[in-house]
Amino acid sequence: MSFQNPVFIPGPTNMPEAIRQACYMPTIDHRSPMFGKILHPVLDGVRRVLKSKTAKIFIFPSTGTGGWETALSNCLNAGDKVLAARNGMFSHRWIDMCLRHGLDVQVVETPWGHGLPAAEYEDILKADKNHDIKVVLATHNETATGVKSDIAAVRKALEAANHPAMLFVDGVSSIGSMDFRMDEWGVDVAVTGSQKGFMLPAGLAIVGFSDRAMQATKTSTLPRTFFDVHDMQKGYDNNAFPYTPPVGLMNGLKLALEMIEEEGLENVFTRHRRIATGVRLAVKAWGLELCAVSPDVYSDTVSAIKTPDGFNATDIVTRAADKYGMAFGVGLGEVAGNVFRIGHLGMLTDAMMLSGLGVAEMVMVDLGLDVKLGSGVAAAQQFYRHGI
Amino acid sequence: MSFQNPVFIPGPTNMPEAIRQACYMPTIDHRSPMFGKILHPVLDGVRRVLKSKTAKIFIFPSTGTGGWETALSNCLNAGDKVLAARNGMFSHRWIDMCLRHGLDVQVVETPWGHGLPAAEYEDILKADKNHDIKVVLATHNETATGVKSDIAAVRKALEAANHPAMLFVDGVSSIGSMDFRMDEWGVDVAVTGSQKGFMLPAGLAIVGFSDRAMQATKTSTLPRTFFDVHDMQKGYDNNAFPYTPPVGLMNGLKLALEMIEEEGLENVFTRHRRIATGVRLAVKAWGLELCAVSPDVYSDTVSAIKTPDGFNATDIVTRAADKYGMAFGVGLGEVAGNVFRIGHLGMLTDAMMLSGLGVAEMVMVDLGLDVKLGSGVAAAQQFYRHGI
Amino acid sequence: MSFQNPVFIPGPTNMPEAIRQACYMPTIDHRSPMFGKILHPVLDGVRRVLKSKTAKIFIFPSTGTGGWETALSNCLNAGDKVLAARNGMFSHRWIDMCLRHGLDVQVVETPWGHGLPAAEYEDILKADKNHDIKVVLATHNETATGVKSDIAAVRKALEAANHPAMLFVDGVSSIGSMDFRMDEWGVDVAVTGSQKGFMLPAGLAIVGFSDRAMQATKTSTLPRTFFDVHDMQKGYDNNAFPYTPPVGLMNGLKLALEMIEEEGLENVFTRHRRIATGVRLAVKAWGLELCAVSPDVYSDTVSAIKTPDGFNATDIVTRAADKYGMAFGVGLGEVAGNVFRIGHLGMLTDAMMLSGLGVAEMVMVDLGLDVKLGSGVAAAQQFYRHGI
Amino acid sequence: MSFQNPVFIPGPTNMPEAIRQACYMPTIDHRSPMFGKILHPVLDGVRRVLKSKTAKIFIFPSTGTGGWETALSNCLNAGDKVLAARNGMFSHRWIDMCLRHGLDVQVVETPWGHGLPAAEYEDILKADKNHDIKVVLATHNETATGVKSDIAAVRKALEAANHPAMLFVDGVSSIGSMDFRMDEWGVDVAVTGSQKGFMLPAGLAIVGFSDRAMQATKTSTLPRTFFDVHDMQKGYDNNAFPYTPPVGLMNGLKLALEMIEEEGLENVFTRHRRIATGVRLAVKAWGLELCAVSPDVYSDTVSAIKTPDGFNATDIVTRAADKYGMAFGVGLGEVAGNVFRIGHLGMLTDAMMLSGLGVAEMVMVDLGLDVKLGSGVAAAQQFYRHGI
Repeated sequence: MSFQNPVFIPGPTNMPEAIRQACYMPTIDHRSPMFGKILHPVLDGVRRVLKSKTAKIFIFPSTGTGGWETALSNCLNAGDKVLAARNGMFSHRWIDMCLRHGLDVQVVETPWGHGLPAAEYEDILKADKNHDIKVVLATHNETATGVKSDIAAVRKALEAANHPAMLFVDGVSSIGSMDFRMDEWGVDVAVTGSQKGFMLPAGLAIVGFSDRAMQATKTSTLPRTFFDVHDMQKGYDNNAFPYTPPVGLMNGLKLALEMIEEEGLENVFTRHRRIATGVRLAVKAWGLELCAVSPDVYSDTVSAIKTPDGFNATDIVTRAADKYGMAFGVGLGEVAGNVFRIGHLGMLTDAMMLSGLGVAEMVMVDLGLDVKLGSGVAAAQQFYRHGI
Repeated sequence: MSFQNPVFIPGPTNMPEAIRQACYMPTIDHRSPMFGKILHPVLDGVRRVLKSKTAKIFIFPSTGTGGWETALSNCLNAGDKVLAARNGMFSHRWIDMCLRHGLDVQVVETPWGHGLPAAEYEDILKADKNHDIKVVLATHNETATGVKSDIAAVRKALEAANHPAMLFVDGVSSIGSMDFRMDEWGVDVAVTGSQKGFMLPAGLAIVGFSDRAMQATKTSTLPRTFFDVHDMQKGYDNNAFPYTPPVGLMNGLKLALEMIEEEGLENVFTRHRRIATGVRLAVKAWGLELCAVSPDVYSDTVSAIKTPDGFNATDIVTRAADKYGMAFGVGLGEVAGNVFRIGHLGMLTDAMMLSGLGVAEMVMVDLGLDVKLGSGVAAAQQFYRHGI
Repeated sequence: MSFQNPVFIPGPTNMPEAIRQACYMPTIDHRSPMFGKILHPVLDGVRRVLKSKTAKIFIFPSTGTGGWETALSNCLNAGDKVLAARNGMFSHRWIDMCLRHGLDVQVVETPWGHGLPAAEYEDILKADKNHDIKVVLATHNETATGVKSDIAAVRKALEAANHPAMLFVDGVSSIGSMDFRMDEWGVDVAVTGSQKGFMLPAGLAIVGFSDRAMQATKTSTLPRTFFDVHDMQKGYDNNAFPYTPPVGLMNGLKLALEMIEEEGLENVFTRHRRIATGVRLAVKAWGLELCAVSPDVYSDTVSAIKTPDGFNATDIVTRAADKYGMAFGVGLGEVAGNVFRIGHLGMLTDAMMLSGLGVAEMVMVDLGLDVKLGSGVAAAQQFYRHGI
Repeated sequence: MSFQNPVFIPGPTNMPEAIRQACYMPTIDHRSPMFGKILHPVLDGVRRVLKSKTAKIFIFPSTGTGGWETALSNCLNAGDKVLAARNGMFSHRWIDMCLRHGLDVQVVETPWGHGLPAAEYEDILKADKNHDIKVVLATHNETATGVKSDIAAVRKALEAANHPAMLFVDGVSSIGSMDFRMDEWGVDVAVTGSQKGFMLPAGLAIVGFSDRAMQATKTSTLPRTFFDVHDMQKGYDNNAFPYTPPVGLMNGLKLALEMIEEEGLENVFTRHRRIATGVRLAVKAWGLELCAVSPDVYSDTVSAIKTPDGFNATDIVTRAADKYGMAFGVGLGEVAGNVFRIGHLGMLTDAMMLSGLGVAEMVMVDLGLDVKLGSGVAAAQQFYRHGI
């Protein structure tokens, strides 16, 4: 695997060298005022990316999975009821975590490739007259299937049902790459990580808590220490963490936020949409289909591409790595072997994407798929030329 | 604060540039076989540093605090009884975590500056006829006081009482810098982090589980997902983590382990002892005393130095940072304001240590302490010359 | 200009990050034995790349131009006669340097796009009964036109004429990327630089002197100090330079040589030929022609591509940079505006090359050229798939 | 030799990591406008450091030796008369270069340890009624002896003699660390390099030419191409070099100049003086003497320290490297074995200097010199505490 080629896994993403250098700064005294000059701009910058005015931001040396656990363990009690749809590997895992922490999950099984069933949520919420459901979980972007869901619609379902449940959103593979509106959508806990839109190594769970979520922490009795948001807040109030902070990653996140703001958050979204559209046009030119069933759920950060029956999609990933030194994503769970994934998020250029499409084509032809060399590249080029 | 000067906080330590570069490698596909070539040598290398033949090693994107939580939440049940001594800030925090996870802690209050009370442990264990005590906690090196405890003695206390309790040891500021013998001492869970002897940034909890500890995980019912060792083991069996691994830090740890083995683990310990002895001779030359009450508990990784009554030891740290661009450690908890700390662990040379002692002297004289310039440096030089 | 995209200028080339890190190592004492451990492996490694058993290798903190000056000023006397062909910008500049150093150059004007005229050389050498010609200059690879010349044929011309003139070869853009046989071809001085096949920043002139060239230095009276090979040799004999050596670049060159030997020198050549062939097939698919007039002179390190009459080829380079953040080479001298150049040397992968071809296509279509999107990419893909 | 310790050779100096990272930037197209944005701020910044309003600045991929050759070969003709004093290794080498380029040097032998003999210069210049002397050479800071000379006094000698000779100054180890006033002192060519006050790797010759020097280039007939300032100027006028520029080093120099201006040029000088004074006080405390004979010639960038008769000063350097991993400078030429040198220039802190003094003390005691451990450190500390 050559370090010269970009990667096209759906995260961790290609890291700009400047960000990597910021991450691995020399040791400073994390109890000195210098750390506060990293910490507070980071918290403010993350809040702006979440499009929230008031959210409390917490960052743990962990991953998105730790962010899920932060959400659950700080806001809920054993036996609390949770509403969640299972439409991919990551929604599945969050549901599994709920069960392991003693929560009572009402699962709406949803075909992989579909978005969250807001209408069904609304029915269920309306039926929950006692308001037993304490939280609705929503995976904004299912990384396994390349499906983006409509979080505003989930909020509308809650409103239509006049239901007080909190809304927890997994935005690990959307935040920083696709539009996310914490305040407007009434998100109570937003969860993300460092290794996707923020272009950093894995190693940070990044969460935002609404006022309601902060209220809920006061009565929550699930055991927690490492992920306790009050300990963390007390730390922040003293320019510190409750334990040794990952200073370098925080410094890298500070730079990443500056880079995002310099490019312009909306421009970042537009760039992701442009690059993703080129990929989708390439898929069409190849005569293939996305796992995502309709344009309204197409993800701008990852495309899961279905291969013909009888073909093992994982072979594409293996051969791309072995022969061409390029990394794509395999299918996971239910769609393992049926799809391969192209990640197109983080700091990516049109030119980089063309190399990914070009290699994908070579691999597919190598493996006997009926794909025309250059066809997908040409479709993407035609779109990229307009530079929208 | 100049990046040119070394830091003398008791961790994170000065990071060799080669290790930082290993950490900031470009993104690779963490699901590719390449990751296994980083992962397995790391697990094996950590096991060797722990001096264990059979321990299961688990590494989480977290910190030492997460390592404590891993130990408790994987091996215990709510209401389980735990025996622990409080002799410093870090033992205090682990006790606090036990309480928050619903454990019943029998605390032996121990003066700060003293080591763990193995004799008292023995009495308590002998008295525990029903074997209610499931775990004995032991902080190998109290970073707050510069006190090293005798873990072998704790094991002997367990044996003398013929008590089946497990022994969990916090070796965050000892492992990799001072001798640690997991198997010989019968340690059931050993906990450390990346940012001390391993010379890495903070960001990894590193734990070793004995067979008995692994057995205990099967009946433990404390809720856990992020820190679940079975999920982690299943990941390792597939060259993976149960979530996105911190590839760069793992790669840095691989190099750190190689560097430690190249220098020789025992040589690393000897170097720490030599440098620490120089510091202790300097302290004596200054006419000051250590917080650690006797030579048998002197730590080779950190020295907490008592300042005269009425003097605010924290002023030393502040002035060193502001005027000389050098970082020392403040006193924590009970000894805040009464001690300042010199960290002398990780990749440190005699020459670097002299600059730390030299600055400490200037600061103390600046602040009116009755210390002779050059006196501590000379005491350390005299010792370092022999290069033991 | 995005640092994310590879560059396709004909040098400096894309530098592997490991090499850059080796270059900017911390300061060491260049008078310590440590420097010798960098210096001598470098000299030996360069000699192997030149395919010489006995050449003296000299490395100056300079560039290829300094290498030319080293060749001339160490071996010749004012008024000496030199035979040279002008078939591109770089041969032109070396001729110009001869004139400025008081040499008498017999120039064979050769159409740009053609190789060196070995037959004509033979005639001239045969006619030079008095052996006034002291040196024949030969540009192995004309970077301006993408033309590789046949150095063995030049040697044969000398032999056919039984002429004692020395043979000086500019291999700046060939050595390390295309086969070069110093001993077999009877090259007396070989000149190259750091920033092409050696994948380093510009900053080193690298030259090899045959025994005959070393003999010539003894009678040469052209003034020189900085570029004096005897001072340099005396330095090397003491693990030193006659002035401060560029330690980091030498350390980077050491790593570059190790990487070349690990890949295998012949494999490096094969990779360059494969990637270049793909580029040439793309050019054909675009309906365009190379500046190089025939396959026997096609360069494997750079392709100069002619654009239609009335079209300003430089616009391609400008638009590629401005709109797509990608660097190609402009035409120089006689062919300025008539060609653009794609550099394809150094550490390059097939995937990287596809992104270069893809961007070139977009730019040409943007600018109204009759090129089909994806056509060149497809031609290259088809070839790269076979992975020769 | 540990990369952890600072170096105390008199250049190359300790390089701030940010500067090294700026140097090892990825490849850019050096013919793109991006290079101009590096080049011109560098030329302007160097001019400010030289304290000149109008000097033409030229930067070559070379070293200070190349800068000397640039001065001579661009401004003089074979047979021209040059006045120079030999008071150390570097003045000696410049004289030697003059001879090799066919110049006629009138050498004033001056004891090593003394400054330039301005009074004697004045006599000679007055006696040169025909104005045969075209240039006076002056080494501002003799790196071999730690002697700083009075350039203003040399200019006064020229004025007193009403002599039109140009004044060429070697400021390699002074410029950027000690005050240098090109315009005020009437310096015609100032020569320096990248690896001293500019805190970069070796690899750049940096020269400033006055208007008179530029005039002289028009009639100079010494052969030159690589070091031709007109080619270079023509390059700069097109945002380019006449050959491939060392982009990374130029980028590093840009940052170095920014760092110098941020600290304040006069503050940089003050810091060098403070650190040097501490070193000199340490030398006195050791009972040793400097090679420099009197305070007016003490250098603020390097101290050459005499050791007792019969003692081999080079042993200090060897043992410091072998046993303590620290680099000092050996004596050169006439004073080889009689002095060792401590370089104290570039980005250095008081704390770093203490580690150098501390190691020097240990080494001297190890080798049997009658030096008291801590004595020199204490003398320096006492001075550094005042933080002048």
